[in-house]
Amino acid sequence: MADLKSKFLEAYAVLKKELLEDPAFEFSDESRQWVDRMLDYNVPGGKLNRGLSVIDSYKLLKEGKELTEEEIFLASALGWCIEWLQAYFLVLDDIMDSSHTRRGQPCWFRLPKVGMIAANDGVLLRNHIPRILKNHFRGKPYYVDLLDLFNEVEFQTASGQMIDLITTIQGEKDLSKYTLSLHRRIVQYKTAYYSFYLPVACALLMAGEDIEKHTDVKHVLVEMGTYFQVQDDYLDCFGNPETIGKIGTDIEDFKCSWLVVKALEICNGEQKKLLEENYGKPDPENVAKVKALYHEINLQGVFAEYESKSYEKLTTSIEAHPSKAVQAVLKSFLGKIYKRQK
Amino acid sequence: MADLKSKFLEAYAVLKKELLEDPAFEFSDESRQWVDRMLDYNVPGGKLNRGLSVIDSYKLLKEGKELTEEEIFLASALGWCIEWLQAYFLVLDDIMDSSHTRRGQPCWFRLPKVGMIAANDGVLLRNHIPRILKNHFRGKPYYVDLLDLFNEVEFQTASGQMIDLITTIQGEKDLSKYTLSLHRRIVQYKTAYYSFYLPVACALLMAGEDIEKHTDVKHVLVEMGTYFQVQDDYLDCFGNPETIGKIGTDIEDFKCSWLVVKALEICNGEQKKLLEENYGKPDPENVAKVKALYHEINLQGVFAEYESKSYEKLTTSIEAHPSKAVQAVLKSFLGKIYKRQK
Repeated sequence: MADLKSKFLEAYAVLKKELLEDPAFEFSDESRQWVDRMLDYNVPGGKLNRGLSVIDSYKLLKEGKELTEEEIFLASALGWCIEWLQAYFLVLDDIMDSSHTRRGQPCWFRLPKVGMIAANDGVLLRNHIPRILKNHFRGKPYYVDLLDLFNEVEFQTASGQMIDLITTIQGEKDLSKYTLSLHRRIVQYKTAYYSFYLPVACALLMAGEDIEKHTDVKHVLVEMGTYFQVQDDYLDCFGNPETIGKIGTDIEDFKCSWLVVKALEICNGEQKKLLEENYGKPDPENVAKVKALYHEINLQGVFAEYESKSYEKLTTSIEAHPSKAVQAVLKSFLGKIYKRQK
Repeated sequence: MADLKSKFLEAYAVLKKELLEDPAFEFSDESRQWVDRMLDYNVPGGKLNRGLSVIDSYKLLKEGKELTEEEIFLASALGWCIEWLQAYFLVLDDIMDSSHTRRGQPCWFRLPKVGMIAANDGVLLRNHIPRILKNHFRGKPYYVDLLDLFNEVEFQTASGQMIDLITTIQGEKDLSKYTLSLHRRIVQYKTAYYSFYLPVACALLMAGEDIEKHTDVKHVLVEMGTYFQVQDDYLDCFGNPETIGKIGTDIEDFKCSWLVVKALEICNGEQKKLLEENYGKPDPENVAKVKALYHEINLQGVFAEYESKSYEKLTTSIEAHPSKAVQAVLKSFLGKIYKRQK
C-alpha cells in the first residue's frame, strides 16, 4: 500500500510536467512558473483520500490481480483529476467564504501577489482535468464516459454549493429554512457525489464497466457520503480539536449542520427560541449556550443512534450487491469512515 | 436572416427550460428561480454575434441548401453554448477586475443579494455547456469532438486571461513588459480562439468535418480575431464614444493595448519617458498627454496601415483555401469586421 501511495505521488510530477508543456498554449517562463507554483500550493497538500481511493477501488475490482505499471499510472491520473477538482472548488470556495487558512497555510487568494487572480487560477485548475484526460485516455473506449462523468459530477457539486450559498445569504439568518431535507440535498450534491461516487465511478470505468448499470452503487456511495458529512458536522462540535486538527466554528458561522437541523426537530418551543437567539453569533457566550442545549437534548446519543442505523443500512445494501468485488470496494470505503474520530 | 435570429432567440427559452428541469439535480423553487434569474441577467444581453455566427457559418457550409428546423435548432444550441461560455468568463472577469457595469447594467456580483455567490454562478454557467451538449448531441458522431473542442478553447481562454492578469498585477506598473509578442499572445488566447475559431469549428463539426484537418482555417480565424482585438484597442482611444457605446479607459487602466505597444516601438527616448510617466494614471491630464503623444507619432496612420495590410493578408489566405464554402464562411467574418467603427 505504501508502494501504491508513492507511485501515486510520482504520478503528480508527471502530470504537472505535461501541463507545463501543454502544446495548446504558448507559455512564457513567467506564466509557466506561475502555474507551477499555483499547482504545488493548491493541489497536493490535502489528505489525498479521494485520489488514492481510485487506485484502491480499481485494485479491489481486479480481485487481487497484480496491477501493471500502466494501470497504476492511469488510476493515479484519474485520482489526481479528483484532487484537481477538489483544489478548484476549494480555491473558489475560500474566495466566496472570505476564508483565511486552508490546510495549515494562508488561502491562495490571500497571498499578496495573487489576490483575485485566484479566481482565474481556480478556472485553470478545472481546465487541467480535461487536459489530463485527453493526454492519457483519448483512445480508450470509456473516454467519452469519463468526460460525461466529470462534467455531471462537477455540475452536481456546483449546484449543491449554490443551495448552500443561497440558503446562508448574509443578513438573512432564518433557522426555519434549516430542515433535514435541505441538509441532505446540500450534502448529497456538494460533497457526496465528488468525494464518494466519483472515485468509484472512475475505477468502474477503467475496469470496463458501464456505470449507467450501477445506479445501486451510486446510491450506496451517496448515502455513505451523506453519513460522512454528518460525522463531519458532529466532529465540528463534539470532536477533539487536537485529533481533528481544527477548531470547529459551524455554530458561529450559522452553518446548516446536521446538529442544528436535528436540534430543531427535537426542541420544544422554549429551546427553539434559545437556538434562534444564539445560533450564528460569534460571541463565545452564545456558542456555549447552543452547546449546552445540544447536551441537554442529548444530541450525542441521537448521533450514536444515527451512526449505528446508517452502518446497518449501508451494510445491508452492500451485501445485496451481486458482485463480491464491488462489495469489497464499498466495504473498504465504509470501513475507513465508520466511527472515525477525525 | 431576421428569421434565423428569431429562431436563435427561441432556442434560448428551450435550453433554459431544460436546464431548469435537469434531472441530475433536485431543484427547490428557490434555487430554480435563482438560476432562472441568473441566466436571464447574464446570458442573452449581449450582441450575440458569436452565437449567431454558428448558424451563419453552418448555412454557408451547406452552400445555400435550406436548413431543416432541427439543423437550425442544433446550430442555435451550439451558438448558445458559446454565449454561455462568454457569460461565464464575463461574470468572473468582472469580479476579478472589480468592474461596475456590464452591458448597461450593474455587474452581476454588484447586486446586493448576489455578491460573491457570483463566483459560483460563473461556475454554474460553465457547467451548463456540457449539459446542453449532452442533451442534444450525445448520440452524434462528433459528440466527443465537441467536448474536446469546448474544453480546449476554454483552457486557451483561461490561459490567455492568466497572462493578461499576471502582467498587469496591481502595483507593478512596468511598461517594459509590453511588447507586440505579449500583446499577440494575450489577444490570441484570451479572445481569438473563443470568439472567432470556436463558432466556425462548431459549424464544421456539425457539417461532419474533421476539424483536425482544418488547421489552416483555425490559423486564419485566429489572425482575424487578433485583428478584431487591435480594432477594439484602437476604438477604445480613437472611436466615437457615442458609436461604440462606452468611454474607453485603457490608458487609465494600464492596459496592454496595441496602441501603447506600437507607441513604445516607435517612440524616441524622450517620448518613452513621457509614456512611462503618464500611462496608467486616472488623472485626465495624464490621459490627455498620452493621447497627444499618440497623435504626435501618428498612431492613427500606423493603425490604418496595419488595417489594410491585415485585410490583404487575410484575403490572400482565405482565397488559398480549396473549399469555396469555407472561403465564404471566412469572407463573411472578415466582411463583418473590416473597417468597423463599433
